[in-house]
Amino acid sequence: MSVHGIVLFGHGARDGRWAEPFERLAVKLRDAHGTAGPVALAFLELMSPDLPTAVAEQVAAGCAAITVVPVFFGQGGHVRRDLPALIDACRVAHPGVTIHCAIAAGEDDGVLDAVADYCLRQIAGSSSPAD
Amino acid sequence: MSVHGIVLFGHGARDGRWAEPFERLAVKLRDAHGTAGPVALAFLELMSPDLPTAVAEQVAAGCAAITVVPVFFGQGGHVRRDLPALIDACRVAHPGVTIHCAIAAGEDDGVLDAVADYCLRQIAGSSSPAD
Repeated sequence: MSVHGIVLFGHGARDGRWAEPFERLAVKLRDAHGTAGPVALAFLELMSPDLPTAVAEQVAAGCAAITVVPVFFGQGGHVRRDLPALIDACRVAHPGVTIHCAIAAGEDDGVLDAVADYCLRQIAGSSSPAD
Repeated sequence: MSVHGIVLFGHGARDGRWAEPFERLAVKLRDAHGTAGPVALAFLELMSPDLPTAVAEQVAAGCAAITVVPVFFGQGGHVRRDLPALIDACRVAHPGVTIHCAIAAGEDDGVLDAVADYCLRQIAGSSSPAD
């Protein structure tokens, strides 16, 4: 079976704590994806590694295919313009590797259902005037 | 029963299509929240309305309590610094209304599970060299 890597692509932020849910997401995916391939984070800006570095590491680890998932809530300019340019550069750099780019995770109905469920739980938990 | 509003607080973007999943999320929540209160969007920048406007509209609609949910994947500077300042200003403007601010949706384990599931579905669907 060929090795299929997953790269979780996030925006990045100055505050290091911003990346914590991305790291927890990567742990969940490593558990689920198992021996099928590596799972890595990559960031557009302000955090490292960048996408070309993360992709090159997965290629060096033997990945024949890599799926990049934009962990963004919406498909704005970063996902529609910046990311395709990065993906194209990765494809040129690694012509033997199939690099697939997903739609932003926040566009997925299952993700939106989970966010809606989270919102409703906040209402249920805010009957006392908490902060 | 008192009227409890929900404000979905997003970053905003220049590309109007960025807001589409937020609008779909609001529709889901309006269905689920029903007559309990209104559901509105608000944005930090580049899109309208801003948070003070959305909160003022819900107060005018009779909300005794408002829960603001940051629809961000991580708790960076926008959620840790910009948002609390906006919430404080809303509380000063509407002292009779309980304004609750949730943790960023992307920190929730159920949301992360849904994103992980989405990522695994991308792998399953990318066995052909799609884009």
